[in-house]
Amino acid sequence: MFEQLGLIGCGLMGGSFALALKRAGLVKQVVGYSKSPTTTAKARQLGVIDVEAPSALLAVSGADIVLVAVPVAATEDTFKAIRHLLTPQTLLMDVGSTKSDVVAAAQRVLRDHLTGFVPAHPIAGKEVAGVEHADADLYVNRQVILTPTEHTSPTHADRAEQLWRALGAQVLRMSPQQHDATYAAVSHLPHLLAFAYINGLASQPQGQQFMAMAGPGFRDFSRIAASDPSVWRDILLANRDEVLAQSRHFRAALEVLEQAVSEQRADLLVPLIEQARALRSPWQMPATKNTDD
Amino acid sequence: MFEQLGLIGCGLMGGSFALALKRAGLVKQVVGYSKSPTTTAKARQLGVIDVEAPSALLAVSGADIVLVAVPVAATEDTFKAIRHLLTPQTLLMDVGSTKSDVVAAAQRVLRDHLTGFVPAHPIAGKEVAGVEHADADLYVNRQVILTPTEHTSPTHADRAEQLWRALGAQVLRMSPQQHDATYAAVSHLPHLLAFAYINGLASQPQGQQFMAMAGPGFRDFSRIAASDPSVWRDILLANRDEVLAQSRHFRAALEVLEQAVSEQRADLLVPLIEQARALRSPWQMPATKNTDD
Repeated sequence: MFEQLGLIGCGLMGGSFALALKRAGLVKQVVGYSKSPTTTAKARQLGVIDVEAPSALLAVSGADIVLVAVPVAATEDTFKAIRHLLTPQTLLMDVGSTKSDVVAAAQRVLRDHLTGFVPAHPIAGKEVAGVEHADADLYVNRQVILTPTEHTSPTHADRAEQLWRALGAQVLRMSPQQHDATYAAVSHLPHLLAFAYINGLASQPQGQQFMAMAGPGFRDFSRIAASDPSVWRDILLANRDEVLAQSRHFRAALEVLEQAVSEQRADLLVPLIEQARALRSPWQMPATKNTDD
Repeated sequence: MFEQLGLIGCGLMGGSFALALKRAGLVKQVVGYSKSPTTTAKARQLGVIDVEAPSALLAVSGADIVLVAVPVAATEDTFKAIRHLLTPQTLLMDVGSTKSDVVAAAQRVLRDHLTGFVPAHPIAGKEVAGVEHADADLYVNRQVILTPTEHTSPTHADRAEQLWRALGAQVLRMSPQQHDATYAAVSHLPHLLAFAYINGLASQPQGQQFMAMAGPGFRDFSRIAASDPSVWRDILLANRDEVLAQSRHFRAALEVLEQAVSEQRADLLVPLIEQARALRSPWQMPATKNTDD
C-alpha cells in the first residue's frame, strides 16, 4: 500500500497505471503532471489523478512511488527535474520500451537515488493514445519486464514485482541488455521491416494499386507499419545497435532464400520454408499461453 | 446453368467450388478426380462430388465446365492429360495463385482449346487444407481475379465472371502479368520476408528464447511464416522474377531506414515512418471495404 503516487506523464500508459492502482486500493492519492497542462487537467477531470502538479518536481514531492511515463527520449530530462525530491524510500519506475538507454540515463543523473529505481517495460498498449483511453485493465494478463540494475535494492525490486502482480500482470526479470536484445528481435526489427516493406511499395508508381488488391496476409504482416512515428523513432534510435544486429541476421536469411528462388532450387527452398513453419507454427503468445492452461 | 462439372483436384479449393456450385443450383452433376484415390472417395462420401472418375481425362468426359484445382506445378501435366476431351464449348478454369506460368503452360499444351480457358485466382483459403474442410461459403465476399488471355473467347470470359458472381465473389479482370506483379507485391514478398525473419531468429542461439517473450506485433507480422512449404515453393518459383523485383524495392527501402538509424538521423527517420503509416493506416481489405459501405 502506497500513500501517494507521483505520476509524470498522464498518457495511456501512465493513466492506466494510476487507474489500476486506485482500483486495487493500493494508493491513497495520485498527484500528476504532464508537459501539456491540458492533459493534466483532463486527467484530473477523468479521475485518473487527484491533484494537478505544476511541475514534474512538485509531482514527486511527498510521493512514496513515482512512475515516469514519458517518451523514452524525455526520460533523462525528467530524471534531472525530479532527482532533488527523491528519497531512499521512493520506489521509482519507468515504462519505456528500451532499457539500456534508460539505465544509462539513470546512472548519469540519479547517482545516490539509483537504489530505488526499478526499470520496467509493460508489454501492453493500444492502437490509440491519450489519457481519455486510460484503462484500469490495460495491464491485466500482460507481461511486465523488470530490469533491476546492479544498484537497485532487492527490497525495491521485490515491491515493484508484487505491485505489478497485484495489478494482474505477469512479471519477468532480466538484464537491460537481455531485454533490449529480446525486443530488438521480436518487436523492433519487425517494425523496421514493416516500415521498409510499405515504403518499398510507396516507391513504385503502381504501389497503391497493388495494395488495393491485398488480402488477409498483407493485412496482418503490415499492421505494425501504421505505428506512431515519434514513438518508433525513439525506440529504433535508442536500441539501434541491437536492431541493426538483428537486421543483419534477417538479411543473411533473406539472401539464402532469394538465392534458392533465383536458382530455382526447389530442393533448398522447401527445407528453408519448413524451418520457418516448424518454428512459427506452434508459437503462442505468452499471456494467452498461460490463460489457456 | 451447367450440366456437368469435371473437377480435377478435390481439395479445399476445388471441393468448395463444387459445393458452392451445387448449392447455387448451377450444376446438375459433379464428376471428380484426385491424384489420391482416398481423396476422391472421401469427396464422394462427403457429397462434394457425385461420381468418382478413375482419371483426369475421364473426369472431363461429358463436362461443359472443368475446374483444374491442383498444385500450380502440376497444372501443365493436367492440361496434357485432359486436352483430348475438351471441346470448344467447355469452360475451363484453374485456381492457381500465379497466372503467367499457367497461361504459358496452357499456350504450350492446349493450342486449339485456348478459347475456353479462363485463368482464375480466387483470393480465398483457410489455414487448413483437404476436402473435409471444403465449404460452400469459401468464395462469398472474396475477390476472384480473372486473367483472360488474348485467345480466350469473350463469351467464355463473361460466363466465368457471371458464375463467380453467382457464388458471391467479387470479380476483377487483369492481365496475367499485372496479376503476378500485384501478388508478388502484396502476398508473395510478405511471405518471403516472413520466412526470412523467422529463419533469422532460428540462426541465433537465443532465437527461441526471444520468441517466448513476443507479443501481438510479432504474432501478426509472422503469422504467414507458418504457411505450407510445398504451396509456397511452387508460388515463389513460378513467380520468381516478380518476387525478386519486389524484394529489390524492399531492400532499397530497408537500406534507407537502416542508414537513418545507424547515423542517428531522427530528422530522416520520422518522415520515413510517417510515409509508411500514411499509406498503411487508411488501408482496408477489399471485401470488408465493400461490405462496410
